[in-house]
Amino acid sequence: MTEYFGEFFGTMIMIILGNGVIANVVLRRTKAEGSGWMVITAGWAFAVMIGIFCAIATGSSQADINPAVTLAKLLMGIYQPAQAVVIMLCQIAGGFVGACLIWLHFWPHWAETEDSLILVVFSTGPAIRQTGANLFSEIMGTVMLIVPVFAMFSRNLGSFPPGIGAYLVGILVWSIGLSLGGTTGYAINPARDLGPRLAHAVLPIAGKGDSDWSYAWIPVVGPFIGALLSYGIARAVGII
Amino acid sequence: MTEYFGEFFGTMIMIILGNGVIANVVLRRTKAEGSGWMVITAGWAFAVMIGIFCAIATGSSQADINPAVTLAKLLMGIYQPAQAVVIMLCQIAGGFVGACLIWLHFWPHWAETEDSLILVVFSTGPAIRQTGANLFSEIMGTVMLIVPVFAMFSRNLGSFPPGIGAYLVGILVWSIGLSLGGTTGYAINPARDLGPRLAHAVLPIAGKGDSDWSYAWIPVVGPFIGALLSYGIARAVGII
Amino acid sequence: MTEYFGEFFGTMIMIILGNGVIANVVLRRTKAEGSGWMVITAGWAFAVMIGIFCAIATGSSQADINPAVTLAKLLMGIYQPAQAVVIMLCQIAGGFVGACLIWLHFWPHWAETEDSLILVVFSTGPAIRQTGANLFSEIMGTVMLIVPVFAMFSRNLGSFPPGIGAYLVGILVWSIGLSLGGTTGYAINPARDLGPRLAHAVLPIAGKGDSDWSYAWIPVVGPFIGALLSYGIARAVGII
Amino acid sequence: MTEYFGEFFGTMIMIILGNGVIANVVLRRTKAEGSGWMVITAGWAFAVMIGIFCAIATGSSQADINPAVTLAKLLMGIYQPAQAVVIMLCQIAGGFVGACLIWLHFWPHWAETEDSLILVVFSTGPAIRQTGANLFSEIMGTVMLIVPVFAMFSRNLGSFPPGIGAYLVGILVWSIGLSLGGTTGYAINPARDLGPRLAHAVLPIAGKGDSDWSYAWIPVVGPFIGALLSYGIARAVGII
Repeated sequence: MTEYFGEFFGTMIMIILGNGVIANVVLRRTKAEGSGWMVITAGWAFAVMIGIFCAIATGSSQADINPAVTLAKLLMGIYQPAQAVVIMLCQIAGGFVGACLIWLHFWPHWAETEDSLILVVFSTGPAIRQTGANLFSEIMGTVMLIVPVFAMFSRNLGSFPPGIGAYLVGILVWSIGLSLGGTTGYAINPARDLGPRLAHAVLPIAGKGDSDWSYAWIPVVGPFIGALLSYGIARAVGII
Repeated sequence: MTEYFGEFFGTMIMIILGNGVIANVVLRRTKAEGSGWMVITAGWAFAVMIGIFCAIATGSSQADINPAVTLAKLLMGIYQPAQAVVIMLCQIAGGFVGACLIWLHFWPHWAETEDSLILVVFSTGPAIRQTGANLFSEIMGTVMLIVPVFAMFSRNLGSFPPGIGAYLVGILVWSIGLSLGGTTGYAINPARDLGPRLAHAVLPIAGKGDSDWSYAWIPVVGPFIGALLSYGIARAVGII
Repeated sequence: MTEYFGEFFGTMIMIILGNGVIANVVLRRTKAEGSGWMVITAGWAFAVMIGIFCAIATGSSQADINPAVTLAKLLMGIYQPAQAVVIMLCQIAGGFVGACLIWLHFWPHWAETEDSLILVVFSTGPAIRQTGANLFSEIMGTVMLIVPVFAMFSRNLGSFPPGIGAYLVGILVWSIGLSLGGTTGYAINPARDLGPRLAHAVLPIAGKGDSDWSYAWIPVVGPFIGALLSYGIARAVGII
Repeated sequence: MTEYFGEFFGTMIMIILGNGVIANVVLRRTKAEGSGWMVITAGWAFAVMIGIFCAIATGSSQADINPAVTLAKLLMGIYQPAQAVVIMLCQIAGGFVGACLIWLHFWPHWAETEDSLILVVFSTGPAIRQTGANLFSEIMGTVMLIVPVFAMFSRNLGSFPPGIGAYLVGILVWSIGLSLGGTTGYAINPARDLGPRLAHAVLPIAGKGDSDWSYAWIPVVGPFIGALLSYGIARAVGII
């Protein structure tokens, strides 16, 4: 398959497992209900690892599965602008389809769950709503994703054996969730937030409430700013 | 030993550790009682990893330890039909023997435990009983097992160093449990459910209740449908 | 250093970290008090991994750090009988010294802790006291340690890259704890239980109570029987 | 970049993620509030791993990110005294900057949190205040860091594949936290404690209270004594 399909497919798999862990913990009457932050962060870590494997296997050479990462690589000259835009759209489409599949997977549990928790399964929201601080959190979370990724795959580290690179990126995502995720829910990936939010907007879920579009720009703009900053930092410290 | 013995032995080891973790968490008065979803999902992850090691070590070249995986490989032409059927029977037999050993290991704890929890140690059951949704969950869980496994061992990923492949399959199973397991308990393996259910039916456990045979077809048929679907998807996206 | 010193040193390190995690969770007013089964089992897993590294680094070629493993290897002809006995004594001595160091490390916490919990930090005890069942649990736990270890290092698995073997043995120990440990506390190692029990007997801890010598034979004899059985099984299934 | 910059940058990244996990768990109204010891210790483990990757990527050949480790290597003759002092200052500076960034990241949460918990996010403190015992804990924690690190990278262990060394050091730090961290919060690194304590002293946080300078020497002197002792032990047992 193509570069584009790999990004779509890998992002879809990541969102099935990533939004899946939120559904598993948040929706009522699942066997994992209320199982906490360790479950959520481990679930997202492995979701990213498996998403990367699936992206590579289906034709992606880069396996970004994150428009912010794609933006940083566009600045590095790895992509042409038009190519980067199509990749980002594929990632968002993957997020949309993945979220729809999670809706089906947890079918009987939506009606059991309070309305206010339904959006939580799809998209991130702030622990304390405060525009500047929330934006800063998303920028910083993204910098702490992209700069270490560039560090891990830089010349000095040597070349990881097959499988180890994606595993260690998963551990990095686990780390970001454990350490920085409690403020805004660490979207740090526009496709992770926007794709499922679009799914929330269109899916016929009873009592789903609104999709909180007034917040939606933060987990998109924050990660993109984080990507710009990461590119600058990575250049400055010589890891790209 | 032979291919068949490896599948029996690996599945038995997997079920000892896999059903073991359920017993450890669910049965009354164990030191792990009530320790939660992270313990259960980690326990199953490592159970699968160690089951794979033991299957390979005792003669299996494929180490499926799961009839759904075997079905997908039958479609790929890796097995002859008769061979696949014998392998599946060996896997179910391994599940049966493993569950019997868990019964012995937790000997004093059965009498301490409410009747309604005893079947839980042996076989899966739905969080909310709803045939269509439960079947869908088992199909989707199985697709999320087999497609990523095919992706991980596809050409594009390179060849994992010894030990890493089984470890990463374990992490994948951890991920499925964390993210998708809360609806039906993620059987995603007919031998994991049917073998122990047969053990439940024949073992002389006081107050064990019935073996819920009306549900038993879902964790068998669901994974087999998931295997067919996985084969189709994997072919379509070019990873097998 | 010598084979013997490596076994002493590796076992000591393992017991510092292994008994340490019990102290950390069980003793009153530590920051980890009551943090549960996941912490305990992960702590023991990493304790074994690091113990193995330290044993190898200080001269051990086998890094058993467990008399039951040493017994199984004696049967395989890897050791002379006298050599095996000295190794076992070194392992028990390592367990004794390690437990003494844990006593010092948690110095202010002993006086804060109920008398009945103090022995728990040193040695294992059954969740439900029942001689036959407890012995069976220790036998089975040990078989589930030694047979998979032999499987993992058998010819069919290939040769793990440096570091991976000890890591995967740690994961195996994590698995045993998660899945089988809740009945007797998974000693599965005579030195892990006897060394610290001797320390408990001689250390001047106020209100420490008796050392429960009536139970002490089970976590010694059980693992040794498990080793004999493991040797038989491993021979029968062709992994040694 | 240079050796010095790598130590600064790697320590800064480690402190962002390490102090970050404390903030995430301790500060009020984060999504991870109260999520416990497993989260804290895993967070620190991955923080160290990622700090090492970032240190190496930005020019450090040693990636100590810990003045105690640097002291032990000074004794081994790896550094000149003046060079070691500059490295230590860079590490402390990294700790200072990292802690300031965590202050910004969790901006809206400080005002929600009781005064007595604010210092906890920056620096370690004892569970039970007792000078001799606290000092001993920090010495022993540091010995259990440095001796196993020397063991893991000693000749007998072979050479880890790229990425595995830092990962296993992370697991070692996880182990120390799980097993020994509950007494004094396992600083085991003067830069981890002193850098953030200086940040606490200068940052304008309302109701932050004093910086507990009377305790501050223990997590500095303890690790340095631990480093001296580790050097002696490592020499004596032949791993350096």
